[in-house]
Amino acid sequence: MLFFMNHETQQESKKETADEGFADVVTLGQNQPLPLDSGKKIGPFEVAYKCWGRLNADKSNVVLVCHALTGDHYVRGTNPITGKRGWWETMVGPGKPVDTDRYYVICINVLGSCAGTTGPASLNPDTGKAYGLDFPVITIGDMVRAQARLLDHLGIDKLFSVIGGSMGGMQVLQWAVDFPDRVRTAIAIATTWRHSAQNIAFHEVGRQAIMADANWAHGRYLDHDEPPHAGLAVARMAAHITYMSESGLTSRFGRNLQDRDKVAFGFDADFQIESYLRHQGISFVDRFDANSYLYITRAMDYYDLAAGHDGILASAFKESKTRFCVLSFTSDWLYTTEESRHIVRSLNAARARVSFADIEMDKGHDSFLLDCPDMDAVVRGFLSSEAEAMDGENKP
Amino acid sequence: MLFFMNHETQQESKKETADEGFADVVTLGQNQPLPLDSGKKIGPFEVAYKCWGRLNADKSNVVLVCHALTGDHYVRGTNPITGKRGWWETMVGPGKPVDTDRYYVICINVLGSCAGTTGPASLNPDTGKAYGLDFPVITIGDMVRAQARLLDHLGIDKLFSVIGGSMGGMQVLQWAVDFPDRVRTAIAIATTWRHSAQNIAFHEVGRQAIMADANWAHGRYLDHDEPPHAGLAVARMAAHITYMSESGLTSRFGRNLQDRDKVAFGFDADFQIESYLRHQGISFVDRFDANSYLYITRAMDYYDLAAGHDGILASAFKESKTRFCVLSFTSDWLYTTEESRHIVRSLNAARARVSFADIEMDKGHDSFLLDCPDMDAVVRGFLSSEAEAMDGENKP
Repeated sequence: MLFFMNHETQQESKKETADEGFADVVTLGQNQPLPLDSGKKIGPFEVAYKCWGRLNADKSNVVLVCHALTGDHYVRGTNPITGKRGWWETMVGPGKPVDTDRYYVICINVLGSCAGTTGPASLNPDTGKAYGLDFPVITIGDMVRAQARLLDHLGIDKLFSVIGGSMGGMQVLQWAVDFPDRVRTAIAIATTWRHSAQNIAFHEVGRQAIMADANWAHGRYLDHDEPPHAGLAVARMAAHITYMSESGLTSRFGRNLQDRDKVAFGFDADFQIESYLRHQGISFVDRFDANSYLYITRAMDYYDLAAGHDGILASAFKESKTRFCVLSFTSDWLYTTEESRHIVRSLNAARARVSFADIEMDKGHDSFLLDCPDMDAVVRGFLSSEAEAMDGENKP
Repeated sequence: MLFFMNHETQQESKKETADEGFADVVTLGQNQPLPLDSGKKIGPFEVAYKCWGRLNADKSNVVLVCHALTGDHYVRGTNPITGKRGWWETMVGPGKPVDTDRYYVICINVLGSCAGTTGPASLNPDTGKAYGLDFPVITIGDMVRAQARLLDHLGIDKLFSVIGGSMGGMQVLQWAVDFPDRVRTAIAIATTWRHSAQNIAFHEVGRQAIMADANWAHGRYLDHDEPPHAGLAVARMAAHITYMSESGLTSRFGRNLQDRDKVAFGFDADFQIESYLRHQGISFVDRFDANSYLYITRAMDYYDLAAGHDGILASAFKESKTRFCVLSFTSDWLYTTEESRHIVRSLNAARARVSFADIEMDKGHDSFLLDCPDMDAVVRGFLSSEAEAMDGENKP
């Protein structure tokens, strides 16, 4: 099964409804390739995105939603790749915290991904074959610059807000650092300011699992139509453990057996947690490209907002006019509350305005994707108060 | 390279020195096969073990050391498989906490392992080929019963102490539950009373990594001499992360680069943590059998001391005369302090005698294998006080 979108499907989904929004793919960088942090350039490249709501007259109501590692731009409505509903319908929609009756919401598939934006599974115009490992290694900064190119193309200069969780939160902070004048508010959820040794370690396990699969063929599997599904499934399983908390796993699965009264003394999935993890692995490979997984995890590992500032994160945010909202979850051990606190302390040191909420929730890192009234209330209040402040400024 | 011991090497190492001790392999269960928890039986089977010190006249000074998942009986001296020193020389030896000048120390390679005791890489007498997946699935209880058989064979009825960390600690507790009259003291370090959902999840990732390796060949790789090294290395890497703490990884590796000044924008090991993990994986495959890894992780997942007692751990220890010492490490997130506390509370509820120490150390689960003066002091004091109590009892 192909995991990436073909162009026809994208065009079909252009029809606009309140729920389905408007989807498009545009080609950018034909004349002016995008410079990358590696020193290489890419262009032309395609960018897939989706929008909901109405752009107001002064274009002051744009909210950019940034997606996570294995996410895509299908925030709401039907995801044509999986057939499932969008990944953040609790957060984005009519009457939701990111209210599409009020804001014009855009989500852009990141560079290097596989849901429509150019990535290693895309055709390399120089060879007529998939890029594979000829795709340049990218960074979170590169992803953000590609998004900025699309917004330029759409004539959108300023963002009322940028919001995202996990890798989405990394992009949020990168936006605020790299384009401080374009970002009025920034909402960074369940994220960090740099990948830790443990974060890198888990990603390296995933990459090694993919590369250990003989079908990976040094990244050229698309030439042979035998993708490294087994390795990619193992990578997903390992990562998935880090998305859940120990207590969440215990309360949801414990040592419950799967469709049996006693252990079978074999290597089938005796326990529910085994069956659940296997399902996570198997269902992932149908929707995601193994090389994209290598590239995006690499971008996350390279992420370190303090790197260009002698390790002082506050220097990255110096004199920022952006108003920040930082949210963490008590049970998130992937990007911990302590890491969010460091972001908040650094914003304070940089004299930036920041709200912070550490939300009590036992579902681990994935809490940001789940129904979480506390998170919704914080985001709703933060955005509403700033929207009212902006309305006040614009009054004569 | 063969990862398991051949018999000649074992015989060679029989020569006894204070450091090298005495090693032997005995065949058991010829007439009376060992009944297993699965309902199957195994016999004959070989058991490899090693001893240090001198057995006293009334055989009251025996300390059984139980090894962890990938451990073996080479506690001290040169390990003939790896060429390295034994795995617990800080704990066991002349003048050490488990003092071989005072105690007669035995360590037995567990059933299912690959350092001399029968496991899936051993020859199946019924077929003349390696067992592979025809080896019966075993439990921690089976491992302990096999050890008891060896002690019977050696004429050792009672153990002055049983000590072990991690899976070794599971055996310690299992010994106390299954053979309460044979165990005077039990020292369970960095361990648990049952494998949690998260514990099972990490093991399942490792097993899936092995089984995803085409060379695994449904466990029959020894017939083809192409072991699933890539999959086993990934399994080891994933597990190794759980043996270290986040703070320990940060202080030891952080985001330090490996032999370079800046990231290389590729998929080589840019970061020290990546290089370290890859080394852990690669060096592991030369000393350990992939099927043994499947079987022993399975035994650990099946481990639940409360299972036969309506989930009430205290019932498993009811009226135990054994004196217990439970040690945990503050930074161990694999088998947490909270799990040790549950063991201690259950022992209290069972009116058993128990000492407990939660040791401040930032090296994570592997702390028990490292130089840790606090742990050494607790073990030394616990054993000495009981030895003195026993001397007092034996005086006329």
